[in-house]
Amino acid sequence: MKIRIGIMGYGNLGRGIECAIKQNDDMELAAVFTRRDPETVKIMTEGVRVYRAEEAASMKDDIDVMILCGGSATDLPSQTPEYVKYFNVIDSFDTHAKIPEHFAAVDAAAKASGKIGIISVGWDPGMFSLNRLYANAILPDGRDYTFWGKGVSQGHSDAIRRIDGVVDARQYTVPVESALEAVRSGSNPELSTREKHTRECYVVAAEGADKARIENEIKTMPNYFADYDTTVHFISAEELKANHSGIPHGGFVIRCGKTGANGENDHIIEYSLKLDSNPEFTSSVLIAYARAAYRLNKEGVSGGKTVFDIAPAYLTAQSGEELRKHLL
Amino acid sequence: MKIRIGIMGYGNLGRGIECAIKQNDDMELAAVFTRRDPETVKIMTEGVRVYRAEEAASMKDDIDVMILCGGSATDLPSQTPEYVKYFNVIDSFDTHAKIPEHFAAVDAAAKASGKIGIISVGWDPGMFSLNRLYANAILPDGRDYTFWGKGVSQGHSDAIRRIDGVVDARQYTVPVESALEAVRSGSNPELSTREKHTRECYVVAAEGADKARIENEIKTMPNYFADYDTTVHFISAEELKANHSGIPHGGFVIRCGKTGANGENDHIIEYSLKLDSNPEFTSSVLIAYARAAYRLNKEGVSGGKTVFDIAPAYLTAQSGEELRKHLL
Repeated sequence: MKIRIGIMGYGNLGRGIECAIKQNDDMELAAVFTRRDPETVKIMTEGVRVYRAEEAASMKDDIDVMILCGGSATDLPSQTPEYVKYFNVIDSFDTHAKIPEHFAAVDAAAKASGKIGIISVGWDPGMFSLNRLYANAILPDGRDYTFWGKGVSQGHSDAIRRIDGVVDARQYTVPVESALEAVRSGSNPELSTREKHTRECYVVAAEGADKARIENEIKTMPNYFADYDTTVHFISAEELKANHSGIPHGGFVIRCGKTGANGENDHIIEYSLKLDSNPEFTSSVLIAYARAAYRLNKEGVSGGKTVFDIAPAYLTAQSGEELRKHLL
Repeated sequence: MKIRIGIMGYGNLGRGIECAIKQNDDMELAAVFTRRDPETVKIMTEGVRVYRAEEAASMKDDIDVMILCGGSATDLPSQTPEYVKYFNVIDSFDTHAKIPEHFAAVDAAAKASGKIGIISVGWDPGMFSLNRLYANAILPDGRDYTFWGKGVSQGHSDAIRRIDGVVDARQYTVPVESALEAVRSGSNPELSTREKHTRECYVVAAEGADKARIENEIKTMPNYFADYDTTVHFISAEELKANHSGIPHGGFVIRCGKTGANGENDHIIEYSLKLDSNPEFTSSVLIAYARAAYRLNKEGVSGGKTVFDIAPAYLTAQSGEELRKHLL
């Protein structure tokens, strides 16, 4: 019997989950839930229905793991503790500062229901967090560096779009190559915000808009751009669509550490991602952890979990024997 | 109370373990065991004794985790199943083809004794294996590449030393940069052995030895060199000592995979290590897994394990709460 996956929310992430399920023979899409009118939501998988979000609880016996594809700001803080009453759930909650309280709420509800809720799954938080943990455990005398990009930041793109006279915009976060090289050299550099990343903006201005003012408003925007070297390119709507409609991302987690009787030996651990589609890669991570949630819950495990709590073997459909033979 | 570590075998790896213990406040070195005369073995840690290997079993209540620092060819196949009768043990067994039988022997003995035996810990097998597993679980439709180096291969250096007229030698395995770049580009190249790595040899020849013959014997040696582009440099014993006495190593694990409705998006996951000291880094990994063995066994877990079976949180001394707050 296949693992029956439910998708709550059918945006970029939900569509990514649907694609990822097709790559995993031990899984099947059971249902998609939406807050929109289900009649208006067209999915790719034949024979699978779209339901109203309110119908989910009544389908608790039809779904093994519900993947919550809502946003961290307003959806997940209420959705994850709610749906873990009925299902094993996975979310990609990424508001770092609020992880402790989100975890506490999910853990309490999951313990009460006997289900598993794995929060903050994806690549950061997620795979990057795992790599920080492994590298810290191995090299306690060391220093962490995380770089993001080159990739599209949705939040920064939105911030530009709110400026008067801007029709559309796309913002790329770009790691500074010389900073990366300094870190890789083992020189343990102290790097300011400005030295680590630059910001590249592609902006479609309204006809007759004052481009100099727009550029200035972008470059001086507090929190978003003021602390960075920012480049602004004005382009046409057609160019934006043709060259900037993808959602690539990626980044680097690097730890430099010392070992030896007198710390005389340097070591560099580096993990990097180069992703054509941020939401599809995130979906692929979510699906692997959905398998783990299902298997662990079958073994009687319940409660709130993060990627730190899951033994890697649970992520794959292969047996321990196969893994030891082929991947160890 | 600190975790009491025993070291079985005091070579490069054993010394690395001793250094690593000093970097971890929750651990202490309890004893070192050797097959040599203990009087002849001088260790760095004051107040800690060196014992004969045969005395180990009698100290089963004084040691929480025994780290086995012997070789994979002859030591570990017998040592790991033997010592897991008395201790939680960690080894770095790296004969890939014999892992299944080694695991079976350790698992049976560990289940009988109620201890944990984690085998094949280090970086390959070890961290590289983990990264292969995570990347395979996330990107099922993809392809793995592993590159090693630049680093010293002990086995290849030894093979050169066995040639008539060779006084000493050091062999470096070097990944081919253009092959790495081809992999990173996402072109999924088919790479032959020769295309992935070159071999660089630094050889001290005996006075009057026929260098042309030595070079030819190296370059045509089956299994070790014949399938590679090999460079041979003859240098003096002094140069070898001055420039080639370190034991650096490292490498790259890369997985390229596709996602999307029609596999239209490419993703690259890359993990790399650049290590000044192969044995000290391996020791640092072993020590982190020693902590996991201790904690899991306290929770009542026993049996044979690999890095695949250990949830990452067990590797660090930090609580789940601290990890979620600072590393997630």
